Amino acid sequence: MTTNNAVTVLGLGAMGSAIAKTFLDRGYRTTVWNRTPSKAAPLADAGATVAATPAEAAAASPLVVIALLDGPAVDEVLKSLGTAVDGKVLANVTSGSPARARDTERWAREHGAAYLDGKIMGDPPYVGTPDIMFPFSGSRDAFAAHETTLKELGTVAYHGEDAGAAAVEFLAQVAVSYELLIGFLHTLRLVRAEGADVTAFADRVGGSLPLYPALLSSMAQAVTTGAYGPDLGSLDVQAALMDDMISHRESVGVDAVRMREVKKLMDRRIADGHGDQGFSSLFEVLGKV
Amino acid sequence: MTTNNAVTVLGLGAMGSAIAKTFLDRGYRTTVWNRTPSKAAPLADAGATVAATPAEAAAASPLVVIALLDGPAVDEVLKSLGTAVDGKVLANVTSGSPARARDTERWAREHGAAYLDGKIMGDPPYVGTPDIMFPFSGSRDAFAAHETTLKELGTVAYHGEDAGAAAVEFLAQVAVSYELLIGFLHTLRLVRAEGADVTAFADRVGGSLPLYPALLSSMAQAVTTGAYGPDLGSLDVQAALMDDMISHRESVGVDAVRMREVKKLMDRRIADGHGDQGFSSLFEVLGKV
Repeated sequence: MTTNNAVTVLGLGAMGSAIAKTFLDRGYRTTVWNRTPSKAAPLADAGATVAATPAEAAAASPLVVIALLDGPAVDEVLKSLGTAVDGKVLANVTSGSPARARDTERWAREHGAAYLDGKIMGDPPYVGTPDIMFPFSGSRDAFAAHETTLKELGTVAYHGEDAGAAAVEFLAQVAVSYELLIGFLHTLRLVRAEGADVTAFADRVGGSLPLYPALLSSMAQAVTTGAYGPDLGSLDVQAALMDDMISHRESVGVDAVRMREVKKLMDRRIADGHGDQGFSSLFEVLGKV
Repeated sequence: MTTNNAVTVLGLGAMGSAIAKTFLDRGYRTTVWNRTPSKAAPLADAGATVAATPAEAAAASPLVVIALLDGPAVDEVLKSLGTAVDGKVLANVTSGSPARARDTERWAREHGAAYLDGKIMGDPPYVGTPDIMFPFSGSRDAFAAHETTLKELGTVAYHGEDAGAAAVEFLAQVAVSYELLIGFLHTLRLVRAEGADVTAFADRVGGSLPLYPALLSSMAQAVTTGAYGPDLGSLDVQAALMDDMISHRESVGVDAVRMREVKKLMDRRIADGHGDQGFSSLFEVLGKV
């Protein structure tokens, strides 16, 4: 518990309500506002102060957590705050792009507020547990001042002064997750086409994941230094394996669209004279539009 | 150690040599053969018996491990064995497709041998440690008889009577691995374009992997039963997030080719009236050619 235990929550959708409820449960003096006042009723019953306007809500606490539907909703509420925003810390966990986070930070600074942009990796029922992650970025001082309070919400990390950094982290983590999961799902097609047990296969994939952190680290290192060893074998050998994988997939009626893209990258890198390097070196030919 | 501790290894490339050396180190009476006899010299020094022909080598042991360059090399050596193959167990760890494994199994059966097809997930230096995996499939009796011997080589698993099953396992595991790693590498482009630290990001991705085994299991379960809940949120919501990810990638000059494919699958599923289902339901529209 901080010495100053007042917090305001603007926006009481599923996520905002879970956030306000968590603060109340932990003993914070919690002020809430929502466009549709009825959503505030359960929180009022739990001890929250319900403000009539966003400005009244913001005036009640040094930390104002914003959890609205989207960026335009945030802009509209911020504009209505007037001078109530001056001297406050705004911690905005509404979804949105890095560019929007940077724009909102600029607006806040011009109006005398410190700004933290947060993203949410997890669902409302997990708010208040370590199983939901909140990357934050923006004002370092504001984060330091309110870190204890923000940590009531879940696993919190600070990603630096660039207000867009939390959104970058969110988009990048979600991207890796989608790439793993679509690849997994696609491979289940292959496993099922071959008559193997998909559930047992899933368990074996899960069991292999502890091998990856060291590999991911060394790949990031290779990308950073540009020193590409033959990780996962030489590209010459990997390209041959990729051909086998593509022809096997197609032989059982499962398409190989992403495999063919990887093969194309390998072929380009080999044509550039780097067939002795490994998988990480594909970074050099990857995905610049 | 088995009671019958004689084993033969045909093929002494990097992998075959590591296999033969491991058997020698563990006290097996090891007979080896290689087309180029010079490769057998270090093993002879370590105590191996060097046979002049594949038939002579096969005659020396009940278990014949085959580690050759490719399928055609296996076919050629098998044809030269003559009656030496009768009554033997052939454990072939040469790379190759499930179809080829099934063909070789048929040939072995017709010539009086029991057949095990094995694949190798790992590199020669790891032979003899738990960090290299050998999926095997084929004759259950042969596997039971020689399991102890095969386990000298690494982490060994039996995938059933279908001789092609080990190759299916190999191709499927490698596919998931490539999908994760290409997605990770591609996302590093985004992370770097945004000026974030790629090594620190890699560590955070590694730290998130323990969350996946439960998710992979539940996805396999959904695919098996066809009961698709809103995993990772509803597709309606996920498609909107995917749009954000695509436009963000393109705004920083990183292409979004795989993201657009995922989005296309989501759009198809939504158009089919299943926007309330989750990510796993993409299985239904995935990748049939």
